[in-house]
Amino acid sequence: MTAGVLYGVGTGPGDPGLVTRRAWQLINDARTIAYLAPDIGDSFARSIVADAIAADAEEIVLRVPMRPGRAPAQHIYDDGAARIAKHLAAGRDVVVLCEGDPLFYGSFMYVLARLKDEFRVEVVPGVTSLTACAASHLHPLVARNDVMTILPAPLDDAVLRARIGDAEAVAIMKLGRHMPRLRALLAAMGLADRTLYVSHASLETQFSCSLADAPDAAPYFSMLLLYKGDDPWIKT
Amino acid sequence: MTAGVLYGVGTGPGDPGLVTRRAWQLINDARTIAYLAPDIGDSFARSIVADAIAADAEEIVLRVPMRPGRAPAQHIYDDGAARIAKHLAAGRDVVVLCEGDPLFYGSFMYVLARLKDEFRVEVVPGVTSLTACAASHLHPLVARNDVMTILPAPLDDAVLRARIGDAEAVAIMKLGRHMPRLRALLAAMGLADRTLYVSHASLETQFSCSLADAPDAAPYFSMLLLYKGDDPWIKT
Repeated sequence: MTAGVLYGVGTGPGDPGLVTRRAWQLINDARTIAYLAPDIGDSFARSIVADAIAADAEEIVLRVPMRPGRAPAQHIYDDGAARIAKHLAAGRDVVVLCEGDPLFYGSFMYVLARLKDEFRVEVVPGVTSLTACAASHLHPLVARNDVMTILPAPLDDAVLRARIGDAEAVAIMKLGRHMPRLRALLAAMGLADRTLYVSHASLETQFSCSLADAPDAAPYFSMLLLYKGDDPWIKT
Repeated sequence: MTAGVLYGVGTGPGDPGLVTRRAWQLINDARTIAYLAPDIGDSFARSIVADAIAADAEEIVLRVPMRPGRAPAQHIYDDGAARIAKHLAAGRDVVVLCEGDPLFYGSFMYVLARLKDEFRVEVVPGVTSLTACAASHLHPLVARNDVMTILPAPLDDAVLRARIGDAEAVAIMKLGRHMPRLRALLAAMGLADRTLYVSHASLETQFSCSLADAPDAAPYFSMLLLYKGDDPWIKT
């Protein structure tokens, strides 16, 4: 018997219209689906593609505590990977749903790490929150020969300051409780006016505002975008 | 009469399956489509979605000379924008096809810059070559609290060296004739073994190899990927 294929499938930033055709088809055909979910509540990745999931598909839920500052426990991934492996070994394909793109700051890597040597894997890339946020305010994310840097907010001020200084285009992710610190840092760098806050890009709840008006506690699905290069509108 | 809407639509990295559902639908419904093309030959963006384009759709082709080192002429975008504006003013929506994502190093910005103040615009983000290349070799592009930096190859050696040194995950784009220089630079930094070359990700012609085996003249649709962080496989 041939083992099943493990599919890591990006479901994009939130709008079901921003799921790729291949991802939608794979999810629609899937008999076994897996995804991460918080301790309590629904999986965001699943909610994006809910309309594509067959009513009788088997669903493997990996419940991961989402507390800030706590590394997700290794045994949750061990256990989840073992449950997925059982299906694969029995010849059934398993589609793992991943919000955004599976390999861009994604937890899919922990599943992949545990199964890649044993099973055939295919990753279907997805639209990231990065370009979805840029689309929401109709400004180039990065242009010409600009350097673009993506920074997780939990990094130290000194690292953030240096990396922001060195790039023309900057995205800061994983904002959470770091907003007051980021606001002070960007103001001190004289960049507050050039920074845009975006949350829930592509969803009906999409919101964007200046850094000054951004909330102190940012939701998980939010980002700061900063363009420091020459205004891309000016030059052709 | 209401003016038409300008849609900037990402067609993804090359595989028609990696076009989003919304992009496919918009292209399928479009009566007027616009895209860039080289002086001679076909538009890559158009080729990706050829099966979605209605036989009787009107097509506006912006022919842009693709010579390295030459800035595209301003008058080509002026002329193209004027042709698009005529349709919009007459109440017809225009769908502009953009390979990858319209706002990620895309020429769509030049059209957008000329029309954004006069017409309603919507950008549909697409899958970028960045995550498509990562998917092709099944390794996280960027993980945890890593810094990711995207570098255009034409930048000076000193800038490239400093920015590569400062990030855990690096993508180098626009390789063209810069490959011998990049190979020497990455070897001198002791990073040759950690660098992967990928071309035509997601297409049937997809190819990847080590930096040592990469061609001296890289095609436009190619990239170097470099992961310098802790191996994401090891830690959960």
